[in-house]
Amino acid sequence: MSDPIKYVLDESRIPKAWYNIAADLPTPPPPVLHPGTLQPIGPGDLAPLFPMSLILQEVSTEREIEIPTPVRDIYRQWRPSPLCRARRLEKALDTPAKIYYKYEGVSPAGSHKPNSSIAQAFYNKEEGVKRLVTETGAGQWGSSLALAGSFFGLEVDIYMVRVSYNQKPYRRALMETYGARCVASPSTETASGRAILEKRPDHPGSLGIAISEAVEIAAQRDDTKYALGSVLNHVLLHQTVIGQEAIAQLDMAGDYPDVVLGCAGGGSNFAGIAFPFLGAGLRGGPKPRIVAVEPSACPSITRGKYAYDFGDTAHLTPLMKMHTLGSTFTPPGFHAGGLRYHGMSQLVSHCARLGLIEGLAVPQIACFEAGVQFARSEGIVPAPESNHAVCAAIREALRCKEEGKAETILFSLSGHGHFDMQAYTDYFAGKLADLEYDEAELAMALSGLPSVNA
Amino acid sequence: MSDPIKYVLDESRIPKAWYNIAADLPTPPPPVLHPGTLQPIGPGDLAPLFPMSLILQEVSTEREIEIPTPVRDIYRQWRPSPLCRARRLEKALDTPAKIYYKYEGVSPAGSHKPNSSIAQAFYNKEEGVKRLVTETGAGQWGSSLALAGSFFGLEVDIYMVRVSYNQKPYRRALMETYGARCVASPSTETASGRAILEKRPDHPGSLGIAISEAVEIAAQRDDTKYALGSVLNHVLLHQTVIGQEAIAQLDMAGDYPDVVLGCAGGGSNFAGIAFPFLGAGLRGGPKPRIVAVEPSACPSITRGKYAYDFGDTAHLTPLMKMHTLGSTFTPPGFHAGGLRYHGMSQLVSHCARLGLIEGLAVPQIACFEAGVQFARSEGIVPAPESNHAVCAAIREALRCKEEGKAETILFSLSGHGHFDMQAYTDYFAGKLADLEYDEAELAMALSGLPSVNA
Repeated sequence: MSDPIKYVLDESRIPKAWYNIAADLPTPPPPVLHPGTLQPIGPGDLAPLFPMSLILQEVSTEREIEIPTPVRDIYRQWRPSPLCRARRLEKALDTPAKIYYKYEGVSPAGSHKPNSSIAQAFYNKEEGVKRLVTETGAGQWGSSLALAGSFFGLEVDIYMVRVSYNQKPYRRALMETYGARCVASPSTETASGRAILEKRPDHPGSLGIAISEAVEIAAQRDDTKYALGSVLNHVLLHQTVIGQEAIAQLDMAGDYPDVVLGCAGGGSNFAGIAFPFLGAGLRGGPKPRIVAVEPSACPSITRGKYAYDFGDTAHLTPLMKMHTLGSTFTPPGFHAGGLRYHGMSQLVSHCARLGLIEGLAVPQIACFEAGVQFARSEGIVPAPESNHAVCAAIREALRCKEEGKAETILFSLSGHGHFDMQAYTDYFAGKLADLEYDEAELAMALSGLPSVNA
Repeated sequence: MSDPIKYVLDESRIPKAWYNIAADLPTPPPPVLHPGTLQPIGPGDLAPLFPMSLILQEVSTEREIEIPTPVRDIYRQWRPSPLCRARRLEKALDTPAKIYYKYEGVSPAGSHKPNSSIAQAFYNKEEGVKRLVTETGAGQWGSSLALAGSFFGLEVDIYMVRVSYNQKPYRRALMETYGARCVASPSTETASGRAILEKRPDHPGSLGIAISEAVEIAAQRDDTKYALGSVLNHVLLHQTVIGQEAIAQLDMAGDYPDVVLGCAGGGSNFAGIAFPFLGAGLRGGPKPRIVAVEPSACPSITRGKYAYDFGDTAHLTPLMKMHTLGSTFTPPGFHAGGLRYHGMSQLVSHCARLGLIEGLAVPQIACFEAGVQFARSEGIVPAPESNHAVCAAIREALRCKEEGKAETILFSLSGHGHFDMQAYTDYFAGKLADLEYDEAELAMALSGLPSVNA
């Protein structure tokens, strides 16, 4: 039999611990600031929003944080996720490069997001929480939290960015099938939502606005907490099962990447694949190039400012120092809704600042071209978010061809596109554009950054 | 660590051969008849429609037929598919039964269908065919043949039952993403389609009509062959990888089923899970109950006549003796489009006739209730077709609870429902009904069975 296509590990090989990059960074990221006092916050400040176990993970500098058995028990249904060699794509590109993808679309919700939603639901349940409130863009996070809520018997309310809510009725149907309630954001259910609708009743929404709504609701009720699908340290932490498994699987293949690629919106999928490789390099191991791929219509790493900013539009969240386009920036309505966020997680931003990772911005149409080529070679139709990583992987493979180099390329295929087929239909119909953000709006959003940066 | 949730085999455990039940049946099924002469056909009669290697598989009585390496090489991307223990569902039902499901939704097209589409595309390509024509109901077969066509460089034209074409635009988008052409059937592209549209311009279509259209086109061109997604012996043969793997995986679990369940439209998914268990029983092994689960709105096994009938509406196909509702029967427009077929494969029908398997008809709403309960316990949202097996599995588990029996239940989860979310939306909105077929129409269709039955 010829060489394997996929590298499969049995359940016993699911990592026992999440990997915390904070233990290996040469310097820690700047402190998180309280939105009122602009002073560094302590764990207690976050208690209205999160259970204490997650807050302690947020500030931990331990390298390994044990994965609780009930969380691993659920991971076992689809983890370790497969690592596949894209042999047919390699052949189609006629490249000497080896292309591997780590496929997270095998989770029941279809993306990497359950790696964190399951963990978050577990810790909330343990601390007696009854209801979780969250935001979602394209719907991958919302459906993953809905899934986790149904497993742990928690109510889940989801504020979904209105443009996605309207574009993706079936993503909403998925959340409802899992028993969650889904509301278009901005909504009339919150003060922050109503304030925005007053100014602009047809506002398309944004992740920043949806976060404000969810945080506002969570802060009001004792039995209700907030859950975030990316950006925060503990969310990135939970995703590191991806990269840890990939290292073990590449080891089976006798291989190690020269380049590691992941799409980056808030940064959780990117960190999930990248941090274990980055950490190994920081501890003296090989140092692959590590590239965060973002949409050119919402390019926080490549065009944003490294500055303190709020995570949401209504300025209810703490401030983190991050690559940001400004919390009032509303990205154009491109299809990769999971990447339509003004900021980048502080950990990823810090790594970029330290020169440990690269940023790359790619336009929408090139992403769908890449996604279709991938689908026709490998069969899997990627999510629009994941297409950013596919696009970068194909570019790297073509560079290898030009340079005659047999490099090893690894990318995270963060999810399938089964709930995003309207985007493919629009692409084939020639209706997609390489949307540009408004330069004036960006300048204004950046000029409005909080005064702590002065 | 507690007992496994899923049983994973590595690529080397993909079966080396398909299992042919014909080798173990006590009597062979009655001969297939030519549509013109009503005399038994020979391999040459099928040559305009199929490549000779598939025709030889159709009539083979060898127990094992080797799977060609290029086909196994593609299977390797997702096979062996996981066998999972539905522990959370067991707990929710509070049943002493063990429930296992073999999950075929991990294929790139999302169902078991690529097990045959890949094989069919391979043999056609080998014999110089340039274009494949087929029909599809819900779209699982169409997207699977589109996938296979893209892997082997074959053009693929798909006649999709109009009601599904309209209900499921994203299934069509998937076929187009793979590069296939998709046409609503009945269409104006064929004589048989035009004849039907003349009588009823708003005809919702049926698998029988779509087959007529595809067969008509294939018969006209030398470089074009027909591909069928179910019913025929060679299609059922290709699906036996499912049951063979399940036997090996249950062996890992130290288990063997008391009941094996599969949904049944044309019979390919059912045969795929059932025939390897049935064959083992016929060769002296244990004999589980084997149940084909069909929609009560299109109940060929439980309400049809065992008689010679055409596979299509325009009577272009050979006649097979099968459980049939009559080739002119148009099933009501329920959501499990893959089960809206008037007949049942001759092999499954023959097994039912011999008393080797049972039939069970279940109504639509109970299927969706079961599917939602499964989704909330196990995370996977099943296809409407698969919900029939889920529904039967839950009923068996509740029977075990009532009887205090710790039986082992195995069912085939033939595919996910990501492209069928409108059906779930309709279910939650209370818009689904337990559609009944028209008794008068059934009587008329049965009275019109070909005279060879007289």
